[in-house]
Amino acid sequence: MNPDIMKERQTATFDVERLTNILDGGPEKTKRRREIESLVLSDPDFQDEDPNFLSRSERYDQAVKKSAQMILKIREHGISDPEEIYCYKNCVHPGRPQPLDLHLGMFLPTLLSQATPEQMDRFFMPAWNLQIIGTYAQTEMGHGTHLRGLETTATYDPATQEFVLNTPTISSIKWWPGGLGKTSNHAMVLAQLYTQGNCHGLHAFITPIRDLITHLPLPGIVVGDIGPKFGFSEVDNGYLKLDNVRIPRENMLMKYAKVEPDGTYVKPPSDKLTYGTMVFIRSIIVGHSAEALAKSCTIAIRYSAVRHQSEIRLGEPEPQILDYQTQQHKLFPLLATTYAFNFIAQYMNHTYKCINQDINNGDFSQLPELHALSAGLKAFTSWAANTGIEVCRMACGGHGYSCSSALPGIYVEFTPSCTYEGENTVMMLQTARYLVKSYRQAKAGQQLSGMVSYLNEAEHRVQPQPVAARPTVVNINDLASLVQVYKLRAAMLVELAAKSIQQELQRRRSQEDAWNHSAIDLVRASDAHCHYVVVKVFTDKLGEISDTAIHSVMSTLALLYALHGIAENSGDFLQAGLLSGPQVLQISVRIKELLSLLRPNAVALVDAFDFHDKKLNSILGRYDGNVYEHMFEWARQSPLNTTEVHESFYKYLKPLRSQL
Amino acid sequence: MNPDIMKERQTATFDVERLTNILDGGPEKTKRRREIESLVLSDPDFQDEDPNFLSRSERYDQAVKKSAQMILKIREHGISDPEEIYCYKNCVHPGRPQPLDLHLGMFLPTLLSQATPEQMDRFFMPAWNLQIIGTYAQTEMGHGTHLRGLETTATYDPATQEFVLNTPTISSIKWWPGGLGKTSNHAMVLAQLYTQGNCHGLHAFITPIRDLITHLPLPGIVVGDIGPKFGFSEVDNGYLKLDNVRIPRENMLMKYAKVEPDGTYVKPPSDKLTYGTMVFIRSIIVGHSAEALAKSCTIAIRYSAVRHQSEIRLGEPEPQILDYQTQQHKLFPLLATTYAFNFIAQYMNHTYKCINQDINNGDFSQLPELHALSAGLKAFTSWAANTGIEVCRMACGGHGYSCSSALPGIYVEFTPSCTYEGENTVMMLQTARYLVKSYRQAKAGQQLSGMVSYLNEAEHRVQPQPVAARPTVVNINDLASLVQVYKLRAAMLVELAAKSIQQELQRRRSQEDAWNHSAIDLVRASDAHCHYVVVKVFTDKLGEISDTAIHSVMSTLALLYALHGIAENSGDFLQAGLLSGPQVLQISVRIKELLSLLRPNAVALVDAFDFHDKKLNSILGRYDGNVYEHMFEWARQSPLNTTEVHESFYKYLKPLRSQL
Repeated sequence: MNPDIMKERQTATFDVERLTNILDGGPEKTKRRREIESLVLSDPDFQDEDPNFLSRSERYDQAVKKSAQMILKIREHGISDPEEIYCYKNCVHPGRPQPLDLHLGMFLPTLLSQATPEQMDRFFMPAWNLQIIGTYAQTEMGHGTHLRGLETTATYDPATQEFVLNTPTISSIKWWPGGLGKTSNHAMVLAQLYTQGNCHGLHAFITPIRDLITHLPLPGIVVGDIGPKFGFSEVDNGYLKLDNVRIPRENMLMKYAKVEPDGTYVKPPSDKLTYGTMVFIRSIIVGHSAEALAKSCTIAIRYSAVRHQSEIRLGEPEPQILDYQTQQHKLFPLLATTYAFNFIAQYMNHTYKCINQDINNGDFSQLPELHALSAGLKAFTSWAANTGIEVCRMACGGHGYSCSSALPGIYVEFTPSCTYEGENTVMMLQTARYLVKSYRQAKAGQQLSGMVSYLNEAEHRVQPQPVAARPTVVNINDLASLVQVYKLRAAMLVELAAKSIQQELQRRRSQEDAWNHSAIDLVRASDAHCHYVVVKVFTDKLGEISDTAIHSVMSTLALLYALHGIAENSGDFLQAGLLSGPQVLQISVRIKELLSLLRPNAVALVDAFDFHDKKLNSILGRYDGNVYEHMFEWARQSPLNTTEVHESFYKYLKPLRSQL
Repeated sequence: MNPDIMKERQTATFDVERLTNILDGGPEKTKRRREIESLVLSDPDFQDEDPNFLSRSERYDQAVKKSAQMILKIREHGISDPEEIYCYKNCVHPGRPQPLDLHLGMFLPTLLSQATPEQMDRFFMPAWNLQIIGTYAQTEMGHGTHLRGLETTATYDPATQEFVLNTPTISSIKWWPGGLGKTSNHAMVLAQLYTQGNCHGLHAFITPIRDLITHLPLPGIVVGDIGPKFGFSEVDNGYLKLDNVRIPRENMLMKYAKVEPDGTYVKPPSDKLTYGTMVFIRSIIVGHSAEALAKSCTIAIRYSAVRHQSEIRLGEPEPQILDYQTQQHKLFPLLATTYAFNFIAQYMNHTYKCINQDINNGDFSQLPELHALSAGLKAFTSWAANTGIEVCRMACGGHGYSCSSALPGIYVEFTPSCTYEGENTVMMLQTARYLVKSYRQAKAGQQLSGMVSYLNEAEHRVQPQPVAARPTVVNINDLASLVQVYKLRAAMLVELAAKSIQQELQRRRSQEDAWNHSAIDLVRASDAHCHYVVVKVFTDKLGEISDTAIHSVMSTLALLYALHGIAENSGDFLQAGLLSGPQVLQISVRIKELLSLLRPNAVALVDAFDFHDKKLNSILGRYDGNVYEHMFEWARQSPLNTTEVHESFYKYLKPLRSQL
């Protein structure tokens, strides 16, 4: 063990294991997670080569191999709880998507939720046993987040009782679905349903795309890999061109909507059925944001504890770089953000489960708010994590660029979260739509409940005005007071956005144009709303923590999170007159104190995330801190070092001499 | 030509070619640049495979091949002007470093500037003719920016008149130098010089590392590639372990410092000799920041003009995504930033040339300011470009993740600029040191000149105070007025940082600790200073533009740049009482107007950067806008598509079925 990092662990003021339990949701959960992880980590079948040393095709190959093993072993071990399956998978492919993700995560669940009993009989067991490998083919080359714009058609032909599937244009070629390129033999194709001359919008069609025996593409199908990407090297994201592909009527998922043999269309009973799934997926992305940041902070903070560089005092030994205020200022607010996002993910998961019970009882009343909030939080957390990972990477200096740090991989695997499952700006605008609607309802005298209830408080609503005009009663050391300030900021920005729309309307713009001309303000309002929710949930969480030592360090983190957010957005708070200039100055001084206060606990706070070294797979982030010797060892395994002299020397450099 | 993008070009209000000339520095320069580019682009020897489809070893191989060709052809074509050589190279390896970069850019120039005539005789021609291929081995595993900490030693042995080179620890292994791993047979090793029992600091030693004929590592040398990284796949960044490697006394570069045969050390005449080179390299990085952003904006803006998505008005055709206010708000400030950075690079280059003349005349007086400013501007521009590239990429939705967009490549090749040639935070602190020193000089009554002269204006210095207390005379539509506001903001933040140091000293902290405890404030001050300089130089540049149409659109861009910078940092301006809340609100309204105003010129403004399609190598950024058909064509060439069925199907998926 590196002596520096050993010393760091001795300065911790709290019990790391107990904090890990809080993050896992209890000591039993920690225990079970570790059991599952050790099943994978001790399994010789999963001791594979570092993917950084492989070509794309080799990475795909290794991933398919591991996924096949994984499916066998999950059944062997009798793991059936979805969270445990996820944990096992996340340890086999740490932080990386894999070729069967859409089969397991979308194809099978969609069958379960939308197939009729007859369809279950035909498709489920073959899919469960991987005779059928499926993907979910929704996005097209020309359309992503805007689903109504999808162009693929499924036209019912009553003469043969078949659907005819077509991608009529280049832009309608299905594009991006994971596992589509090489792995899948079926696709759940989302297409505009046409029957009896009418379009009935998007429906899902189980479409065979490759022969079950030969795996060759079927007639009318052009399918392949979309080529190298930023990350996702293990996955064959694919394209699919459909040319008059005929499938039986019974291949349309018909649990809700139906097409009768004669072509009569029967509508589904509700249009909110997909909301629950969307909320669930977004809450998972919020969890991913927390996890990616947790990994990045673990690596950067541990490395900063063993890296010595430069000098604070001339002639003295070089300090650990974690002692530099600038380094603390980069990393500790991100550490606080990681905890904040962990708690918001727990909150969303919990809320989702509660509301899901309501839904099962036929009560949809709370779903719209959660749906709207989940969109904004998905964007808010994934954007912050996206930026934060890169801050951590760059805080590691040159070595952060090496794949041995794991940070480049974490970034490229994470960043797509900002775009998939709803592009972030579109997500923010979705939340804004809900906020503006709520604002108008409150203004019309309706009493709002839930997270937007602050819009009721018309009398407290603030407007840009000089600070002198309002009494300032904010206590910058009191979280409740800061939650209040965040709330008022959100209220102000929602009001500003709503007023901007109003003004645009007065300029005789249409409702839609007014919306577009206020979009910047709307995104700001959503951002402020999400920020408020995150600060509030973090603060509320403190109430659940009984261990005093942990309560104390978590309170410091929560305060840092709240104050740093104010410092970064101080214009909003000053503009609204919520804080005065001197208070903002005080906050920046207080932030520096909090950094010093957190310093002795920094390593312990990342240890609590409890990433096994093999799962983190980062030389800079090793638990034992023995960075340099392992970096050298890793480098010597680089494929370019398999020969002392690279063939290009004989081919180009040697001949060049005689030509010059 | 895609009709949307054709239409965009018709709405331009200015002559694109003339703006290109301004960026190039005159019509003749544009002409010559295009001549050189067409030499490369029409050369069949440079029609190579898309590197995105190659393995790392293949990429390195292809790069060595092209570099060897490049060296032959540059001589064939008689290109000898350094800027023209750079232009040729930048077209052979567009935006990518290559294995001979350090040989051409560091090894040869270092010989030219620091070798004695005898050393020139021995080394220059062999190096010129690539018998000797050299690199510049400075950074070590344990030390980067902090050069004094480097551990490699060169100990003089008068008995044999040799230096003995050693990397005594793991952390002292040379690490990162480009071309070191496989390409070079010599290294310019930077080592602590020991003679007669004393250490005389870093000096450069020409060290043979591989046999000239066999290319095998020499005795005592362990050399190799440091492994895969974020970007730089074409370059064999390497490691070098030296174990009692003996080189003749004459291999130390001795134009300035010397070691006599008996071991007597002779000091160099000045310690500012390296400042000029550092300023030059940083000005090049500022230029790279502008270029990387220019490419990213070109791709994102052209693509946003041909991509249609979603709906503003229900039932109407899907709008170009460039019509969304949020998209404009992401891209147009970056477009303005690109122009700002182009002009600041021109300014630095020009200033450097002027000061270089002074230096040649023995006048070093202006060098310290330029040196300090160049550090901050390097950090300021590379950070902004780094973030901006990713904003552009994500503004392209899913397709921005595909390597066919070129954006992932632009990011990974650019981002190291934030770390190499001086880590950005350290660079900001270097500028801050100069600012604080200047502030103290001004306070002591000294009259400052140059860009820091605003620190003289003690009477105008502002402090955080309510806006009501000071008259607000800012005209948000007048650039001169905005330059003034930026200047006052910088003055305030320099003062705040200086006062923070003062307060820390009063708490009985040492000078060094006081500095470290004020580091956040110091970085902020530097940032504000650089921001001021960039706004000022952009504004000054307008005075040189006589074409009224171009002057008009450039003024709009400059205004957007300045106002957007205020909006993003409104807390600073409000806190200082430089702007009132209502003014900040006005600014956000004005920004929206400027976005609309720029909309018709957006495509023309990126066309003016004049990137040849082959150099941009981006399907989304194609000049003709024909994106989708080419994306499909590109994907079909993906290596995973060389067979219809990937071997992993036979190896893992088919056997799996019988096991389940």
